[in-house]
Amino acid sequence: MSGLHFRYWMGVLFTRPNNRFTGMSVPTLIPFKPRNPKTRLSCVLELPEREKLAQMMLCDVVVAAREAGCEPFILGTEPFSFNGIRVVVDPAGLNESINAILEQTPGPLLIIMADVALASAPAIRRMLTTSADIAIVPGTGGGTNALYLSRADRFRVSYYGMSFEKHVRAAAEFGLSFEVVDSFLIHTDIDEKEDLVELLIHGEGMSSHYIRELGFTLSAQKGRVGVVREKAASK
Amino acid sequence: MSGLHFRYWMGVLFTRPNNRFTGMSVPTLIPFKPRNPKTRLSCVLELPEREKLAQMMLCDVVVAAREAGCEPFILGTEPFSFNGIRVVVDPAGLNESINAILEQTPGPLLIIMADVALASAPAIRRMLTTSADIAIVPGTGGGTNALYLSRADRFRVSYYGMSFEKHVRAAAEFGLSFEVVDSFLIHTDIDEKEDLVELLIHGEGMSSHYIRELGFTLSAQKGRVGVVREKAASK
Repeated sequence: MSGLHFRYWMGVLFTRPNNRFTGMSVPTLIPFKPRNPKTRLSCVLELPEREKLAQMMLCDVVVAAREAGCEPFILGTEPFSFNGIRVVVDPAGLNESINAILEQTPGPLLIIMADVALASAPAIRRMLTTSADIAIVPGTGGGTNALYLSRADRFRVSYYGMSFEKHVRAAAEFGLSFEVVDSFLIHTDIDEKEDLVELLIHGEGMSSHYIRELGFTLSAQKGRVGVVREKAASK
Repeated sequence: MSGLHFRYWMGVLFTRPNNRFTGMSVPTLIPFKPRNPKTRLSCVLELPEREKLAQMMLCDVVVAAREAGCEPFILGTEPFSFNGIRVVVDPAGLNESINAILEQTPGPLLIIMADVALASAPAIRRMLTTSADIAIVPGTGGGTNALYLSRADRFRVSYYGMSFEKHVRAAAEFGLSFEVVDSFLIHTDIDEKEDLVELLIHGEGMSSHYIRELGFTLSAQKGRVGVVREKAASK
């Protein structure tokens, strides 16, 4: 048994009592917007490319979640199908939709964004094996990229803006302990052109393969490394 | 004993034989440029402020390294003193200076950048307790923010540009195993205005206190959170 698997099983066996006895996997909610996603990447990607990239990133997140022993399902504002994964459709706002699900979930729930394409199974497992009531991985610039709730019905989310700070405050208000899980793989969301650098450097999944296929490569600039696109955008 | 301390001692006792018997702390090299540092922050900080911020960030890194059981020393291009910490002066280039030290270091060495102001002791300990020959935390945009070498004399560094990829390739060339340690606290370097957002949100040390004192606060913008400075720069 590899060190990785050993740590995983130690986590499952000794840290999470609900898994210890039932072996149940943690339901994992992934909000997803299939239409006109990732508008801040419009400067380098055409609409069909942005839609495909969003799907590839969702796929990477689903793979990492499953590898970590989670049971992912997608929350969408409109019906669509995705590799046979359960899709919950709710046209309401993100917070309203998620909070309606939280209310009905007395057990654990992981909420992870569809654009954290670098997310790895070990990073997700570090969240699931927290000894706190809540584990959170902030996103770049104050967001919340992943939120693990050991008792989902005891919490309410508030995404948008500085949601990391809002969730930390909410944990205190609900009387719940929290841990900030220190993972750059989940911390990195892919929103802007510069973020494609991280995807090119660290990505091992479908989305990084796709942007390489589109002609994106790293370019050494003064200061930080950037990206250039060698092929023209497909029309 | 808290979970944190327990994990730390488990790490020290069972993972690093040199510490197991001798209790020796890991020498930790921090390159530092006291004069005209952080030029990419010139848009929001005057020269004396940039110098002070660089010192505060160095201080935060030193504190985290010490808390993780390391013995920090500073590598500078010119003589200066800093809280009684040993300073090695070498006017040569960064790579040449560090590689000269590596050659003479048969034991372990941690190299950590002076601007990873969010670095925490637990994140550093995760590096020190790697089971690989090398542990590396990449920086935002392809750099190398921290590099732990279990046998420093067997490796040579190559900073600047895409140093993360260069170091990964070098590990393979030298026949050394490596682990990428997944920490956003060490991954986040403070180079540009946008990086101050992370310092304001997650910083608990002297540097975050200093930028708050200078009047920086978070500002909710469309998309990611930014920073604004409420007081004028001091002249």
